[in-house]
Amino acid sequence: MSQTILYKKVSRESKPENTIVRVGSVEFGGLHPVLIAGPCTVESENQLMAIATGVKKSGAHMLRGGAFKPRSSPYAFQGMGIEGLKLLKKASAATGLPVVTEIMSSEDLPAFLEHDIDMLQIGSRNMQNFSLLKALSKVNKPILLKRGMSATVEEFLLAAEYLMHQGNNQVVLCERGIRTFEQSTRNILDLNSLALIRQLSHLPIIADPSHAAGRYDLVTPLAIAALGAGANGLIIEVHHEPEEALCDGKQSLTLGSFEKLMLCVNR
Amino acid sequence: MSQTILYKKVSRESKPENTIVRVGSVEFGGLHPVLIAGPCTVESENQLMAIATGVKKSGAHMLRGGAFKPRSSPYAFQGMGIEGLKLLKKASAATGLPVVTEIMSSEDLPAFLEHDIDMLQIGSRNMQNFSLLKALSKVNKPILLKRGMSATVEEFLLAAEYLMHQGNNQVVLCERGIRTFEQSTRNILDLNSLALIRQLSHLPIIADPSHAAGRYDLVTPLAIAALGAGANGLIIEVHHEPEEALCDGKQSLTLGSFEKLMLCVNR
Amino acid sequence: MSQTILYKKVSRESKPENTIVRVGSVEFGGLHPVLIAGPCTVESENQLMAIATGVKKSGAHMLRGGAFKPRSSPYAFQGMGIEGLKLLKKASAATGLPVVTEIMSSEDLPAFLEHDIDMLQIGSRNMQNFSLLKALSKVNKPILLKRGMSATVEEFLLAAEYLMHQGNNQVVLCERGIRTFEQSTRNILDLNSLALIRQLSHLPIIADPSHAAGRYDLVTPLAIAALGAGANGLIIEVHHEPEEALCDGKQSLTLGSFEKLMLCVNR
Amino acid sequence: MSQTILYKKVSRESKPENTIVRVGSVEFGGLHPVLIAGPCTVESENQLMAIATGVKKSGAHMLRGGAFKPRSSPYAFQGMGIEGLKLLKKASAATGLPVVTEIMSSEDLPAFLEHDIDMLQIGSRNMQNFSLLKALSKVNKPILLKRGMSATVEEFLLAAEYLMHQGNNQVVLCERGIRTFEQSTRNILDLNSLALIRQLSHLPIIADPSHAAGRYDLVTPLAIAALGAGANGLIIEVHHEPEEALCDGKQSLTLGSFEKLMLCVNR
Repeated sequence: MSQTILYKKVSRESKPENTIVRVGSVEFGGLHPVLIAGPCTVESENQLMAIATGVKKSGAHMLRGGAFKPRSSPYAFQGMGIEGLKLLKKASAATGLPVVTEIMSSEDLPAFLEHDIDMLQIGSRNMQNFSLLKALSKVNKPILLKRGMSATVEEFLLAAEYLMHQGNNQVVLCERGIRTFEQSTRNILDLNSLALIRQLSHLPIIADPSHAAGRYDLVTPLAIAALGAGANGLIIEVHHEPEEALCDGKQSLTLGSFEKLMLCVNR
Repeated sequence: MSQTILYKKVSRESKPENTIVRVGSVEFGGLHPVLIAGPCTVESENQLMAIATGVKKSGAHMLRGGAFKPRSSPYAFQGMGIEGLKLLKKASAATGLPVVTEIMSSEDLPAFLEHDIDMLQIGSRNMQNFSLLKALSKVNKPILLKRGMSATVEEFLLAAEYLMHQGNNQVVLCERGIRTFEQSTRNILDLNSLALIRQLSHLPIIADPSHAAGRYDLVTPLAIAALGAGANGLIIEVHHEPEEALCDGKQSLTLGSFEKLMLCVNR
Repeated sequence: MSQTILYKKVSRESKPENTIVRVGSVEFGGLHPVLIAGPCTVESENQLMAIATGVKKSGAHMLRGGAFKPRSSPYAFQGMGIEGLKLLKKASAATGLPVVTEIMSSEDLPAFLEHDIDMLQIGSRNMQNFSLLKALSKVNKPILLKRGMSATVEEFLLAAEYLMHQGNNQVVLCERGIRTFEQSTRNILDLNSLALIRQLSHLPIIADPSHAAGRYDLVTPLAIAALGAGANGLIIEVHHEPEEALCDGKQSLTLGSFEKLMLCVNR
Repeated sequence: MSQTILYKKVSRESKPENTIVRVGSVEFGGLHPVLIAGPCTVESENQLMAIATGVKKSGAHMLRGGAFKPRSSPYAFQGMGIEGLKLLKKASAATGLPVVTEIMSSEDLPAFLEHDIDMLQIGSRNMQNFSLLKALSKVNKPILLKRGMSATVEEFLLAAEYLMHQGNNQVVLCERGIRTFEQSTRNILDLNSLALIRQLSHLPIIADPSHAAGRYDLVTPLAIAALGAGANGLIIEVHHEPEEALCDGKQSLTLGSFEKLMLCVNR
């Protein structure tokens, strides 16, 4: 099928020039890669402030942190919920960093809007939650759409098409690793698809080496690799005390490692 | 991790004997396999009645048919919605067959309850839509939970654990094919996992050879195979005029082929 | 591409009727499924005799057993080599069961011919060892060609085409499970492809549920499933003392379990 | 299992410092990445000379080109064989570039030695051709070992262990893309595993973005990405007239594109 028929709004055929998505003063798709950093999960005010001020100091442009968490088990920590949203905004106010956090259901949308969350993330497990996509298509908020862990490039771009279908043009894509036979690392960062999507679509696309690697010691090489393949930015899990983290501690950089990563990126 | 810790309610360690899930007079997990048949999508009253009466005549025990459809593209037919639910109940009343149909969002739950849908299906793309799982955990309705197309056995059972967590014990699992490198058929029916789940869990599990095959001429051998591996039932796409179907015509059996399949199954 | 161009000799377009491959009095592709059983590895005369007489008694038609073993590690037991070939023939003489065993290199072919091995197996890791395929294409011996663990149906049939290319028409295919993201079992038995190949090719195809399952307690359901999907036979790992086996003990049936499997198959 | 037991010779536990593999004056594993370039297949003297002199001029360090070709179909061009080896040496003599070319069977080893091929490549399909590995373990020639397209990191390193087992320490690994569900590109370049192997093993590892991409327009971003992830070099398919190439034309860079790639790499 010609791309024009398959995709009406996401393809370069429909819009040849790169789209710039703005979140406050941050620009995705512009000249410089955007660096998003923060913990897997908001755990407490102290934790979030320590991390937010740390990554800000190293040069991060945005803060990430989960308040509503998609956990495989009902017995795992499900996130702080609305309290987490409040802490994110507090950390944002203190550091000047806009925040991105995951929304898992359209039922939570009023709370995200009330707390004026800067950018809404759709997680991998919800990439084809079409009810959520339709709801966010009508919202005037930038969206960070993560690729499903076994979604094809076509399915990924069609999920973005759902978001744009009813008017939301502020879509940033995120490659976060795919599920394959190889399990010596958590997922495989698919830079083939990232580079291909740079050609197929005008939308910005960033990479998440933390979830792709699943272990902190591979995050930096994969981050550098992703930028080399053309990523418009990175989203990195950082924790001030990874071994104490409630979630994903194994794949979190320390503040010191993140500072080194920033030095590599800005070289 | 010991299964007792990983799973509290779905494992055989917690409940050694098979669970029987009843939908009207139909029993999943009993002595005989349950045969569910019907179209991919409810298209019209004539279409649904023709198929429902046809599959009933061949010996099907339940009727399937989509009213809310999860389509990869926003430009594909999205289903008849509530009108479809009404037609399903009408066909059910005419044939005596209980119906199962997919629910894509907890926001649609009141409509499903109002129309007294006999069994609610959670589709593959929503297997880890935790908001939906939580909502359906509190409902007194049998659930058909389809495995995500790249979900592990552990993730699949944990999704069932979410359903049981807040009280819904009427859960039937469905293996529908996994996504692999091999693409000469749509998905690969994973009977390893089906047979393994029969051991790990007391919940009934059925197979969907139609979606696994993606082509009608492989549905019957895969259906027989699934029963051989221990499936507690089958869900089969049937259309009276497959080449006219709005969706999945290529993998739909004709009424005649379905009748032959029923003869094989009952042999 | 039309099959006629892609495949010259393996396709049903080139030969509509089923091929019968004979090994002694055993017929692959005939009315009845062929049951091959035996240990992963020939370990000693006592071991092989105990297993061979046991499976013969239960009704097996052929004996399997590895003499040259493809092991991932150079430090794992590499097989008894030519001594193993001799023991296989001895067990064959004692039981009347023809034997099949793996050949890993064309350099070993003279030894296999000298000892008059009844059927030569090409293992999964050598499915695209084209030098070996070319050598065996010129030999007047039946071949059991196992599918590579990530070979597509097309690559599998083209490997068979290599065997037939220079005159060997006695080719039996074997589906043995594919490598996927799912790792709760060793591989996933791909009955989609088995059923598809029954349509595409006139060659017989059997299944190896032992390697697909990787654990003995799933072998029987997968064996029944494979026959349901249309397999022309089964190859099953059996050991008289699985917990003492040098290789693959976890997936080996005991003689007692094999006898029960035979009762299911012959029902 | 501890690495020391799993791997005796390939692991960093056994040898912490990086191994340098020398091919003529070229050093794999040293300070600078090694660039290997050339056609998929040697087609003629004119073709090879045009490409060899072109890539030399752009700064390539070694010449690649297939003489014995592993083709899925017996009806595809199988390579020029020994004549191809001769042309490679001629091109090498003319340009000063050492050559690497694939060996498919130990039976061909005398010819490779006679023509003094500088580096022997083991292709993806033969990564677990243990007879070939054992033969090359005893040879005093550097080996380029390509990862099987669905080999795990462990299997890959164990194949290298086979090579080192009987004394060959001159082993260079090559990541060339793995087979996954995603088929919008030929394979997925697995930089997770490349970065992991840099940690696990002292052996040099290079990347093959041409086979991973399967299309020329993704080769350069993937090449830059691989170096960012820590690759010790690249192997790139280059053809002076890609649209006329007998093999892999779609993924071959022109001489002009290769020159641009070299400028990026050396920046």
